[in-house]
Order: sequence, then C-alpha cells, then structure tokens
Amino acid sequence: MVQVNEVEWSNTEKNVARKAFDQAYIREVNTLIKEVCQQASVISDLNHLWELHDFLSARRHELDGKYDYRYSVLIFVFARLLNEGWLHINELEGLAKDKLIKIEALARMQNFN
Amino acid sequence: MVQVNEVEWSNTEKNVARKAFDQAYIREVNTLIKEVCQQASVISDLNHLWELHDFLSARRHELDGKYDYRYSVLIFVFARLLNEGWLHINELEGLAKDKLIKIEALARMQNFN
Repeated sequence: MVQVNEVEWSNTEKNVARKAFDQAYIREVNTLIKEVCQQASVISDLNHLWELHDFLSARRHELDGKYDYRYSVLIFVFARLLNEGWLHINELEGLAKDKLIKIEALARMQNFN
Repeated sequence: MVQVNEVEWSNTEKNVARKAFDQAYIREVNTLIKEVCQQASVISDLNHLWELHDFLSARRHELDGKYDYRYSVLIFVFARLLNEGWLHINELEGLAKDKLIKIEALARMQNFN
C-alpha cells in the first residue's frame, strides 16, 4: 500500500497542484457541456429526455466525488485524472519526485470506475 | 367539496378521456423537449448545466405526478390540464355534462402549483 495520507505539500507544490486540478476540471466540464448540448440537440421523445436526465444525475454525482481538493487524497485524485486523460503528467511538473512516482504508479494500477 | 370519487365512466367517456389525456401529454412533452433543447444550446458553464439538471429533475417529478390516469382522480387531472392550457374543454366533448361542469369549475377554482 502506498502511504500518502501524511504527505506534506510545499507552497510551490500547492500552486502546481491547484493549477493542474483546475485545468483538469475545466477540461472535463467543457467536454461534458459539449456532450450534453449534442445529446439535447437530437432529443425526439420523452425517453431520450429522461436518459439525458439520468446521464446528468450520474455525471453530477461523479464530478462531485471526483474533484476533491484535500491534500490527504490529492495523490489519488491526480492519479485518476491522469488515468482518465483529463491531466497530463507534464502538468504536475514542480511536485516532488516521490509524489510524481506515486501518482504515475497509481494511475497505471488502479481501476477508478 | 365536489364529489367525484365514485364517478362512473361509460365506455364512450373512457375513449374520449384517454384520447384527451394522451393529447395533453404529447403537447406538454413536446413543449418540454423544445425548452430543454433551447436551454442546452446556450449552456456555457457548469452552473448552467446543473440548472438544466435541476429543471429536468423538477419537471420529471411533476409529470410523473400529474399524468395519473385513474378514473377516481381523472376529473382533477383534466381540471389541472385545462387550467394549465394543455387541454381545451372542446377536447372533452363526449363526457357527461355533470363531469364537464365539475372539470370547468375546478379548473377555474384551483391553484395547482
């Protein structure tokens, strides 16, 4: 088990983390908005409409849980965002090497869905 | 209090009622679909998206409750649909006169929201 609960974050690292976190969030949200606009544009009956509603309910719940900016879980959050393609490892440049190694290892190992 | 719980519906009345009910439902659903498509087309940020989600949640709940085809409540359902403009009294032609009078009276009297 990778020990990350007690990890310290320097001010520089906090800046890098915040920027990367926000960037991933903006990317995912913009993609979601495009997807919803596309789905909505072809709705022809009530079943489609409720499918869109179910889809939004699920994505809202998922986003609320996923974007958790607590330093105690941030390593896992970044691993997931890397794994899902919302973040590139280059965007975490400036974090301590041991954090980057953990994030990359977790991103490869874990199934986040 | 208008007594309608024990109202009897003839076969002719049932046919009229079913057709009018379905017609109102189709009208309301089509209007809702247009509204959602319009709202979705101008979404620019996540708050708008969650507003659309909240709107859909509310409308789904409302429609589920409103379109209740039980003969014991149909007088009230038609009164509400008339009140909200989804149905015109002419479309209930064929129902017994006492039912039409009750429906029209309720449509004028009640606040359904």
